[in-house]
Amino acid sequence: MTEAFRPYRKLLKRAREISLVSGTAGLLSWDHETYMPPKALAFRAGQLAHFSGQAHRLFTAKKVGDWISACEQHAFAAGSDEAANVREWRRLHDRATRVPARLVEKFLRVCTHSLAAWRAARERSEFNVFKPHLQKVLELNRQMADCWGYQESPYDALLEEYEPGIRAAQLRALFAELRPAIVAILGSAMERSAAVPEDLLNGNYSIAAQQAFNRQVAEAMGFDFEAGRIDTTTHPFCCTVGPGDCRLTTRYNEQNFTRSLYGIMHEAGHGLYEQGLPAEHYGTPLGMSASLGIHESQSRLWENHVGRSPAFWEHWHPVACGHFLELKKFSPAQITAAVNRVSPSFIRVEADQVTYDLHIILRFEIEVKLIEQQLAVADVPACWNEEFEKMLGLKVAKDADGCLQDIHWSKGMLGYFPTYTLGNLNASQLMRQAALDLPALEVELARGEYGALREWLREKIHRQGLRHPPAELMRRATGEPTRSVCHLDFLRKKFAAG
Amino acid sequence: MTEAFRPYRKLLKRAREISLVSGTAGLLSWDHETYMPPKALAFRAGQLAHFSGQAHRLFTAKKVGDWISACEQHAFAAGSDEAANVREWRRLHDRATRVPARLVEKFLRVCTHSLAAWRAARERSEFNVFKPHLQKVLELNRQMADCWGYQESPYDALLEEYEPGIRAAQLRALFAELRPAIVAILGSAMERSAAVPEDLLNGNYSIAAQQAFNRQVAEAMGFDFEAGRIDTTTHPFCCTVGPGDCRLTTRYNEQNFTRSLYGIMHEAGHGLYEQGLPAEHYGTPLGMSASLGIHESQSRLWENHVGRSPAFWEHWHPVACGHFLELKKFSPAQITAAVNRVSPSFIRVEADQVTYDLHIILRFEIEVKLIEQQLAVADVPACWNEEFEKMLGLKVAKDADGCLQDIHWSKGMLGYFPTYTLGNLNASQLMRQAALDLPALEVELARGEYGALREWLREKIHRQGLRHPPAELMRRATGEPTRSVCHLDFLRKKFAAG
Repeated sequence: MTEAFRPYRKLLKRAREISLVSGTAGLLSWDHETYMPPKALAFRAGQLAHFSGQAHRLFTAKKVGDWISACEQHAFAAGSDEAANVREWRRLHDRATRVPARLVEKFLRVCTHSLAAWRAARERSEFNVFKPHLQKVLELNRQMADCWGYQESPYDALLEEYEPGIRAAQLRALFAELRPAIVAILGSAMERSAAVPEDLLNGNYSIAAQQAFNRQVAEAMGFDFEAGRIDTTTHPFCCTVGPGDCRLTTRYNEQNFTRSLYGIMHEAGHGLYEQGLPAEHYGTPLGMSASLGIHESQSRLWENHVGRSPAFWEHWHPVACGHFLELKKFSPAQITAAVNRVSPSFIRVEADQVTYDLHIILRFEIEVKLIEQQLAVADVPACWNEEFEKMLGLKVAKDADGCLQDIHWSKGMLGYFPTYTLGNLNASQLMRQAALDLPALEVELARGEYGALREWLREKIHRQGLRHPPAELMRRATGEPTRSVCHLDFLRKKFAAG
Repeated sequence: MTEAFRPYRKLLKRAREISLVSGTAGLLSWDHETYMPPKALAFRAGQLAHFSGQAHRLFTAKKVGDWISACEQHAFAAGSDEAANVREWRRLHDRATRVPARLVEKFLRVCTHSLAAWRAARERSEFNVFKPHLQKVLELNRQMADCWGYQESPYDALLEEYEPGIRAAQLRALFAELRPAIVAILGSAMERSAAVPEDLLNGNYSIAAQQAFNRQVAEAMGFDFEAGRIDTTTHPFCCTVGPGDCRLTTRYNEQNFTRSLYGIMHEAGHGLYEQGLPAEHYGTPLGMSASLGIHESQSRLWENHVGRSPAFWEHWHPVACGHFLELKKFSPAQITAAVNRVSPSFIRVEADQVTYDLHIILRFEIEVKLIEQQLAVADVPACWNEEFEKMLGLKVAKDADGCLQDIHWSKGMLGYFPTYTLGNLNASQLMRQAALDLPALEVELARGEYGALREWLREKIHRQGLRHPPAELMRRATGEPTRSVCHLDFLRKKFAAG
């Protein structure tokens, strides 16, 4: 009935058209990172700029604003699908119209070249190769922040892109609370890990065997390979090209199978969210993820709460031995201890659960300084290395292990990192609630049965799309908005108890 | 100077915009055949329809016609870049404007589903799975032929898409000349091949070794892997996504490495043409290939005249032995004899050089009958099998080896097949001329040096783009338009002499 309201129908049609274009931009970008030959770069930058500009123009057209206004006048019933879509279209439209399409195009062109430069820079561990690109990316981010507008810090305007509603000041308070608590846990966690040799699991794990095992785990989680796939990239990611088309990537280390395993569990967590979004709402807010902080809760939940639990290795040890004979010499408990070994290390995506958020806090502080012009791009490596040593006690010997390790800045994504920590907090909060709601959960996890947990996440999170803002979504799922207490409890219990 | 003429500049700008869109459609289509997960099909069909419609609308806009008219009035100097572009834009624009964008979109949507159905049908060798799709594809081809218009046969209107200027009646005359001549050669060719066992080279060739050897050969031909790549598909093809981005595919048979080798030499022949087109004219007629008959001449030249020559195996035998130890037991001459064994067989792309064109004649006759409504889709397998046996003396036991073997119809391409035979004729004619122009050619080929031949093709064919219509291009390169005499001479000399 309500769909018969013409302006709403127009919006639905426009949303579908935009989704065709932005899904295609997704494929162009996936291909850029997986299979594109290097000499295609300049043309690809043109393509990405063209389609991003096109999607932007389609959404910011004056008549789209008129349709939204008409829908607001129409006053759809509170709690209806239409009301949620209109609320989010208004927010997204207001934000998008503040940025000219030409700036969006320029941003995409610059970022495509910047990504290629970062890859080369990371490979050679030469910050100078990346520096001029980071400079441009930063300037464009500042320009966009100015377009979007902000009250306290331009960083707020960037954050809004990834975590609607959150502000730098809130994060600063949250991190001020987290940091000392983590440091306190870290001491006893490291002590307990001292008995586990760092290279305990090191061996020779063929890539083919890793792929087979990872796939089996992802399938058990419920990732649908008829509607997705896994490829290899420099930096792992999850990307959706369209409904029924969600692509994960990872990288392999033949010495250590756990890197790609937890990489895939992480990305498949994202993938389950994407595959669980209601396909019938694809392209509209109801078919979109709520925020990156919610997205990262899904990845971190599967990676850490499921994948690094004793129950996981109880179940998967015999299967893993089928792929990797050398694992036979370990007990499930030994493997669990090894994958939970706590010790400061250089690479964020491979960091243990305790030190992980310290990596995020470091990036947050540097990003804010960059955006607020308190730090020059040329000084990033020095600043990074100094802060890293203060925070984690390690001397960074090469930038590939330091400020060049992550892809985000090269893709123009400043303001993204804090969502990982929000994801950790949300994951712990969700997992606590799931255990309350599903009395058999522990037994099921020990049997490698993930159906009930997945369906719980489907109902509470995935199928909600953007029906509620992220804080409200968390409140409805767990009884409270994102807080640090639950995650800290989890860390203490797991790493510092007894 | 001339570029300062405003309508011409407008056309250049529009052409660049269209190339961004159609290059993207190229990637969507490549991905469909290589990596796309099956459940993405419906959305992908929507994407392909959307972008093909968009490219069509951009090119058929009224103002594009006005710009072309203004350029015609302007009368650019004969032989100038501008004159050639304007001539072809006029031809292409007149043709395109006869087809409504909605029909283009529908065609792409239908073909995307049809391709997926064909893959399933071929795998299971069940024509019925493909039948309803072929019916739709055929009807849409007929509709488009009616839009385009024709004088004698609707098939003429389809041919024009692949080989501008040629007509079914001309092909019929050509094939009437070729068929008995080929049959005459076939007798003695088979007699000479009788001494070579069919399975002489059969062995166990790992896919990794095949890939390594194929890549080495393609590199020696001059295919630029910084601007291209090779993937695996059901049906081999070559596709250009943009300047600096030309992608080949092949399939592997672990019993017989020559299938993928000659598949790659064929596709790399196409790839060299694409990579040799003048990048500065990308998106305009001067940057486009002249016709499919010219395109196939490049693939068949490298596959057959270079790859199946004694000189080829003189040079590559030791290299091949490095990849495939079991080839050590053969002499180069034995391998040459094996890859030139003449004997009727089921699969066109693997047919010997003598029987190859009989496969094409069969398809041509069936296509004409389908388009002219003298044959029902349901009767295709029976008609195919009957004609195949008449022509090649073999009973088709399953449709996967018969009418389901080729991808073309599933992608909507009726009228394409004859260009393979035109390609064969053109290849022989070009090779004869190259030998006259390059006195050291034979010596170089025996050394595996392909630079001079490639540069000759670059100058005579690749860099010409669509500067001349295909017949004129052949006349300029070889002194005469496409004729059968040279190819028949070549076949007689190679397969029936002495």
